[in-house]
Amino acid sequence: MLASFKTAALVGRPQTAGLEATLQAISGFLAERGVHCLIEDAVWESCVALQHLRSASFDDIGRHADLVIAVGGDGTLLGAARQIGASETPLVGINHGRVGFVTDMTLSGWRESLARVLAGEYRIERRAMISATVSRRGHPVWSTLAVNDIVVTRSSRAGMIGLEVEVDDQHMYSQRADGLIVATPTGSTAYALSVNGPILHPQLAGLVLAPIAPQSLSNRPICLPADVRIRIRVVEGREPRVSGDMQVFGDLHIDDDIRIQCAPHAMCLVHPPGYRYFESLRSKLNWHELPVHEHSPR
Amino acid sequence: MLASFKTAALVGRPQTAGLEATLQAISGFLAERGVHCLIEDAVWESCVALQHLRSASFDDIGRHADLVIAVGGDGTLLGAARQIGASETPLVGINHGRVGFVTDMTLSGWRESLARVLAGEYRIERRAMISATVSRRGHPVWSTLAVNDIVVTRSSRAGMIGLEVEVDDQHMYSQRADGLIVATPTGSTAYALSVNGPILHPQLAGLVLAPIAPQSLSNRPICLPADVRIRIRVVEGREPRVSGDMQVFGDLHIDDDIRIQCAPHAMCLVHPPGYRYFESLRSKLNWHELPVHEHSPR
Amino acid sequence: MLASFKTAALVGRPQTAGLEATLQAISGFLAERGVHCLIEDAVWESCVALQHLRSASFDDIGRHADLVIAVGGDGTLLGAARQIGASETPLVGINHGRVGFVTDMTLSGWRESLARVLAGEYRIERRAMISATVSRRGHPVWSTLAVNDIVVTRSSRAGMIGLEVEVDDQHMYSQRADGLIVATPTGSTAYALSVNGPILHPQLAGLVLAPIAPQSLSNRPICLPADVRIRIRVVEGREPRVSGDMQVFGDLHIDDDIRIQCAPHAMCLVHPPGYRYFESLRSKLNWHELPVHEHSPR
Amino acid sequence: MLASFKTAALVGRPQTAGLEATLQAISGFLAERGVHCLIEDAVWESCVALQHLRSASFDDIGRHADLVIAVGGDGTLLGAARQIGASETPLVGINHGRVGFVTDMTLSGWRESLARVLAGEYRIERRAMISATVSRRGHPVWSTLAVNDIVVTRSSRAGMIGLEVEVDDQHMYSQRADGLIVATPTGSTAYALSVNGPILHPQLAGLVLAPIAPQSLSNRPICLPADVRIRIRVVEGREPRVSGDMQVFGDLHIDDDIRIQCAPHAMCLVHPPGYRYFESLRSKLNWHELPVHEHSPR
Repeated sequence: MLASFKTAALVGRPQTAGLEATLQAISGFLAERGVHCLIEDAVWESCVALQHLRSASFDDIGRHADLVIAVGGDGTLLGAARQIGASETPLVGINHGRVGFVTDMTLSGWRESLARVLAGEYRIERRAMISATVSRRGHPVWSTLAVNDIVVTRSSRAGMIGLEVEVDDQHMYSQRADGLIVATPTGSTAYALSVNGPILHPQLAGLVLAPIAPQSLSNRPICLPADVRIRIRVVEGREPRVSGDMQVFGDLHIDDDIRIQCAPHAMCLVHPPGYRYFESLRSKLNWHELPVHEHSPR
Repeated sequence: MLASFKTAALVGRPQTAGLEATLQAISGFLAERGVHCLIEDAVWESCVALQHLRSASFDDIGRHADLVIAVGGDGTLLGAARQIGASETPLVGINHGRVGFVTDMTLSGWRESLARVLAGEYRIERRAMISATVSRRGHPVWSTLAVNDIVVTRSSRAGMIGLEVEVDDQHMYSQRADGLIVATPTGSTAYALSVNGPILHPQLAGLVLAPIAPQSLSNRPICLPADVRIRIRVVEGREPRVSGDMQVFGDLHIDDDIRIQCAPHAMCLVHPPGYRYFESLRSKLNWHELPVHEHSPR
Repeated sequence: MLASFKTAALVGRPQTAGLEATLQAISGFLAERGVHCLIEDAVWESCVALQHLRSASFDDIGRHADLVIAVGGDGTLLGAARQIGASETPLVGINHGRVGFVTDMTLSGWRESLARVLAGEYRIERRAMISATVSRRGHPVWSTLAVNDIVVTRSSRAGMIGLEVEVDDQHMYSQRADGLIVATPTGSTAYALSVNGPILHPQLAGLVLAPIAPQSLSNRPICLPADVRIRIRVVEGREPRVSGDMQVFGDLHIDDDIRIQCAPHAMCLVHPPGYRYFESLRSKLNWHELPVHEHSPR
Repeated sequence: MLASFKTAALVGRPQTAGLEATLQAISGFLAERGVHCLIEDAVWESCVALQHLRSASFDDIGRHADLVIAVGGDGTLLGAARQIGASETPLVGINHGRVGFVTDMTLSGWRESLARVLAGEYRIERRAMISATVSRRGHPVWSTLAVNDIVVTRSSRAGMIGLEVEVDDQHMYSQRADGLIVATPTGSTAYALSVNGPILHPQLAGLVLAPIAPQSLSNRPICLPADVRIRIRVVEGREPRVSGDMQVFGDLHIDDDIRIQCAPHAMCLVHPPGYRYFESLRSKLNWHELPVHEHSPR
């Protein structure tokens, strides 16, 4: 028997049409089942109807909630995972739009799914997270945690950047490119996929380095074991930048030392019975069944 | 005022479910409007209900019909274009399945569209065709006409082949690969697209050479002006093969001289009013409008 | 018999090691042959040894020179072509580094090559140029001419941009991406090649639209006839930007109207006898001859 | 202190120019150091000068040798690994041509490297192998072991094949393509790299599935954990075929059940001191250091 949940936190993207009503329904549903309910600060601010409930910062949520319910899309869920950080609080996602890669409850079906989760019918899937720290002349100046990826890029005001990449203290390559994406398996279906990166199964213990518009035509995405330590230095270019999940941005100087590795803690996804990774992949990527009659020349 | 059509030929893929009924309806529709009707031999054989009409070979169709109506999919239409060859008889396609790249009448809407075409409301779009001739020790041994592409490939019983490619008597490159696709703009959305070839607009006066699984990572598809003469020689490999539209296959020997160039005649597509190339492209390639609410991380 | 050249302008990238000595040698070589010599302003400023010669702006060069000699690399030559603009003054390139795509004289061989050019032994190759104009609420706010490409991109401080693209007043597609490259054949081997664009032969009358990191996996580079009029609107995103040849940058607002088309005038390259396009391609892209003994598994 | 080697087997590709002389030198070198020497049967047949030594089949080599020395290229070494099968006999490669991905001794430097290996200065790197078994109506009809990849392909006499792929008894996808490559990390730099597969670091516990010319444009290479069980069924197409390392070929019937998984035993590579994986990668893939002066526009 899996743990039962006593305190759930509701998070969402404020200003989403219809969000308030959905959250009200969920908080009522939780109250009926004796689950205590916290509302993330930004949501609390924008949803008057929820202001009788307690608001909480992401830090508080990480400390006090034992379940996070993210209403929105993959971005909302992954943003919550990044912000609760090291607490490993289980997360479940309710889609407000299309089916997502990681949000597996639908707007029409969440009552049944959530009831099963609260009844202990679920499994936890651990997903790797990644962290980056930037040092300048030996002093840390920026750091972030990310669920999808750490990205180093050129400025939009200048041409390519030159990068030096080291893996476990060994020189891997020097390259000129628009940038470099270091992605987790979860992030392999986000930005990295747009630059021809491979899909990494969530249970693969690996990371992928995918260059963005590399000058050398033989530069390809490379998958590394999850326990490597990656160092990137920008050695050429103007105003380079680093980001986490394309949400948190930092300025880089030439020769800054960017250190990237898997985080010690994981994102813990709660899946109600019936979740299948390949099914979400097929759905999101339009991998259809074989068409029975296909008359096209190919 | 465009030409009116007096003799139409019906072609299709025999054994397609429901084909006979559709063809009967079309032949009735044509008869009512005084258009004489020919039935392509293979269709005539398999459709008893049409045997009161005159059968005709593709050669006869090219000589005697002034309109070819292909019922099926893009493959049916393009196959007919290849087989009527040099006659430039206008072709129109009625979809029996999904919307195609070049077949623009639907099963539910063909009556209205065809009525407009017969009333002279249409435009003719000329599409480039391509031809290949294989010579062995100076003697021609195989040739074909194609609408989509000429493809040189390795055998499935052996590894890569080595190719030498000349363009207008200049050495272009030597490469090792699974094969090489030489595609027309029409063919750029068929096989070539699967090996990362670009899309060529039908009015671009060009061809594209797209390698299949090239050993050299810097080999890229290359677009050449439509008036070039291309020569390919297989210099290494076992049992290589050449094909036209992936329908007509020929065996190659080492050092055979394969000459490829645009055909002097075109495929003439009949479009009822409202045909838009980009619309068919968006539909076939799932290029959706910008989603209004997209919560995914990217 | 081709035109002989009376006034040559020397251009280069100031601060390049060894540039001054090369330019001195060239100016002496021209003087001996009675060719008048202009020195581009920025070069004149930085090279004391050339200050006995007349300096000239790129505008003056376009008006008064009948040959431009660019010493440096492809970037120097293409930059000169962009800056002399509409004059169609013939250009020749002398490499100061590796062999380029368009600069075909070497540092060791320029005397012989230039002597032949001055003797009338050369051919002119016309290369398409491209222009962009940005309008905001009906008023033009930015424009540029480019030899390689016009690029619309996201800011490095934010995620993807949403673009609407129209071709000849027809909606082509809406897409979310890091950006979009519109490249000439000359530019097809520059930035566009890094995002998997095809190579366009210089004599192909076409342009290529190559998306940078498109969200939709079925978005592919598309080649259009050279005479199309392209309109791009950024409909979503923060601080988008437009550039010409990745050298000239402009800020965009949401809904700005970016109009792109081939320029009416061309870049006119002077080739000494023996220039072969495919040879420079093979050399730059490391397309080697077939290795005789290759023991690798593939 | 690592094990010392008492019996070494020499393998190579018969008919390679200069092979006999190299093998004679090596066998002399081994004899001087008291290492017993076996000659693989095919090499023994073709090299008269070695016929005073004992010949051995690959089976015998697997049983009796404690070191295999492969002289040739990567293909020779990997072929030996496949053929000695389950014995896990350590292998070392001496290049007869260019530097390889896995053969790290050079023709000029093997004496020094081999001396160090015989002195115990080496490390063993384990590389995953893969196996495939084909069953037809419940009965096994073909099987192979492979070092690089198992490949299912279409015939060169027909168009695409339709595949169904299951991973750990879950449906992964149905796809139409020229074929599908299942590659080990070692094989990720062989055939799979030519179809845009990612590079997998040898220590990554994973496999990659890379489609060849897939019809669906959103089909991408996917990396799976090394312990998965993969099942492939060809459901459509004529004369499909399966191969191991593109060396061993088998015919398939529609609905044959192809089961692929990592082999229980590994290929054991012997590296003399100084071997660095990324160095061989940079060298093989032409990943140059950042050029100091690059004048090209990009």
